[in-house]
Amino acid sequence: MKHTYPIQLRFSDVDQLGHVNNSVYFSLYDLAKTAYLTAALGDGMDYRHSSLVIANINANFFVPVYFTDQLDIQTAVVRLGHKSFTLYQRAVVRDTGLIKCECRTVMVAFDVKTQQSFPLPDAWREALARFEGRTVEELEGEL
Amino acid sequence: MKHTYPIQLRFSDVDQLGHVNNSVYFSLYDLAKTAYLTAALGDGMDYRHSSLVIANINANFFVPVYFTDQLDIQTAVVRLGHKSFTLYQRAVVRDTGLIKCECRTVMVAFDVKTQQSFPLPDAWREALARFEGRTVEELEGEL
Amino acid sequence: MKHTYPIQLRFSDVDQLGHVNNSVYFSLYDLAKTAYLTAALGDGMDYRHSSLVIANINANFFVPVYFTDQLDIQTAVVRLGHKSFTLYQRAVVRDTGLIKCECRTVMVAFDVKTQQSFPLPDAWREALARFEGRTVEELEGEL
Amino acid sequence: MKHTYPIQLRFSDVDQLGHVNNSVYFSLYDLAKTAYLTAALGDGMDYRHSSLVIANINANFFVPVYFTDQLDIQTAVVRLGHKSFTLYQRAVVRDTGLIKCECRTVMVAFDVKTQQSFPLPDAWREALARFEGRTVEELEGEL
Repeated sequence: MKHTYPIQLRFSDVDQLGHVNNSVYFSLYDLAKTAYLTAALGDGMDYRHSSLVIANINANFFVPVYFTDQLDIQTAVVRLGHKSFTLYQRAVVRDTGLIKCECRTVMVAFDVKTQQSFPLPDAWREALARFEGRTVEELEGEL
Repeated sequence: MKHTYPIQLRFSDVDQLGHVNNSVYFSLYDLAKTAYLTAALGDGMDYRHSSLVIANINANFFVPVYFTDQLDIQTAVVRLGHKSFTLYQRAVVRDTGLIKCECRTVMVAFDVKTQQSFPLPDAWREALARFEGRTVEELEGEL
Repeated sequence: MKHTYPIQLRFSDVDQLGHVNNSVYFSLYDLAKTAYLTAALGDGMDYRHSSLVIANINANFFVPVYFTDQLDIQTAVVRLGHKSFTLYQRAVVRDTGLIKCECRTVMVAFDVKTQQSFPLPDAWREALARFEGRTVEELEGEL
Repeated sequence: MKHTYPIQLRFSDVDQLGHVNNSVYFSLYDLAKTAYLTAALGDGMDYRHSSLVIANINANFFVPVYFTDQLDIQTAVVRLGHKSFTLYQRAVVRDTGLIKCECRTVMVAFDVKTQQSFPLPDAWREALARFEGRTVEELEGEL
């Protein structure tokens, strides 16, 4: 996976069981996602205003995350659709490579003003594929 | 759905776009889940120490949630497995019945001391089925 | 105190020590503050856009808050200044009246466009004093 | 100030006004505080179990914090008392040195088992003073 983002955990992320609370994971995925999109799409494409909204999140939890974990989030686009694309992310312990959890997120291009979804611009699709070192066609067929 | 829980939103739940941040939803589902399990299993079953851990979350986001929304979370058990069960939850605007989002959560019986999953006690399975007004057998076959 | 607001705690508010995390308190004060200002100033005064910003927070922590606490936040304006006013808030266990913590917040009238503070409109000062059942003059002298 | 800690902001930290929410600041101070105490007291002193609890927080907010700010929290002990000490912390923009906010926190040595405060061990007082490059006596007199 081509994009790795180091995570800074906070004491308030940890719940009564000593684990990072499940709901916190999605803030961490979100943080890495923002960094990924900035890296892949650049600042110039104004994707923030045109806006990408989350349609679906599907997350597996394998092993608890602890406050002392040195955690990276790895992110990749694994599918390009017409109006949406799918991100795959996972949280990995830096030293051991242990995968603690993973998440698939379906993001939809959505125009806040018209309140309508819209086709992903070709420039976005190409930039995402290029970042992944793949072709748009390859990523269209994937799940 | 037999269990409805009113939600109190906080100003800090709302992000820059004026929407309740996606990661907050899981805190809200969690809150309603705790209330559901207390209602269905009672205080006597010590499920908290024997512990139920989340294995999978699958969430759909239909419509943004706003700070001013009067929101209820509805919760039901929709599947009983051998070592796990599945909760279905959704966030509903109280007055209009509009469903803003929904979530399926797979919970596994997990012993913190031995770090092993264990079969759901029959007493739990029966209590959950009874709360839903269904039989254990009916809930075993569902998805 | 004339304004009492019931608080809904979340499992994710609780830290590893089993206490509601100190940083969460300020979300709760904030929630009650928003309700107070809506009650005292009404919707008509557009204070949200003219904006009130926090200049200082001074908080005492007496007793830990637990997830099972039935908590109310009580709020009052205790001082009216020229460009600012001071709120006093405390978290009280509903049944016993035990005060768990308290907070003084200095809020300043601030214009986001001009990035300048501005004198509190007389209408606001009067509405706040009226809500407290006191005169503007009484509240100007207080600390 | 001898201790500087870089902060990773999250998109969910930002509120509807585009500012990092005031309540988030205290999570950030807390994060830097934990790093400071580990650096100054070391792992060997078991201060976590003997426990330090927060008695008072007094925070000034000068300038809003934005998601794009590269922020450091600087931390120092500025007073050593008999059963308590005072931390001074501030959030500084890395490049410009602009101070966005500051906070004084009074922490008390507190034994969870007996539910009693206790005198700060001399070893802690000396370690904190040594970290600051000052004498215990100097820090006893300060505010």
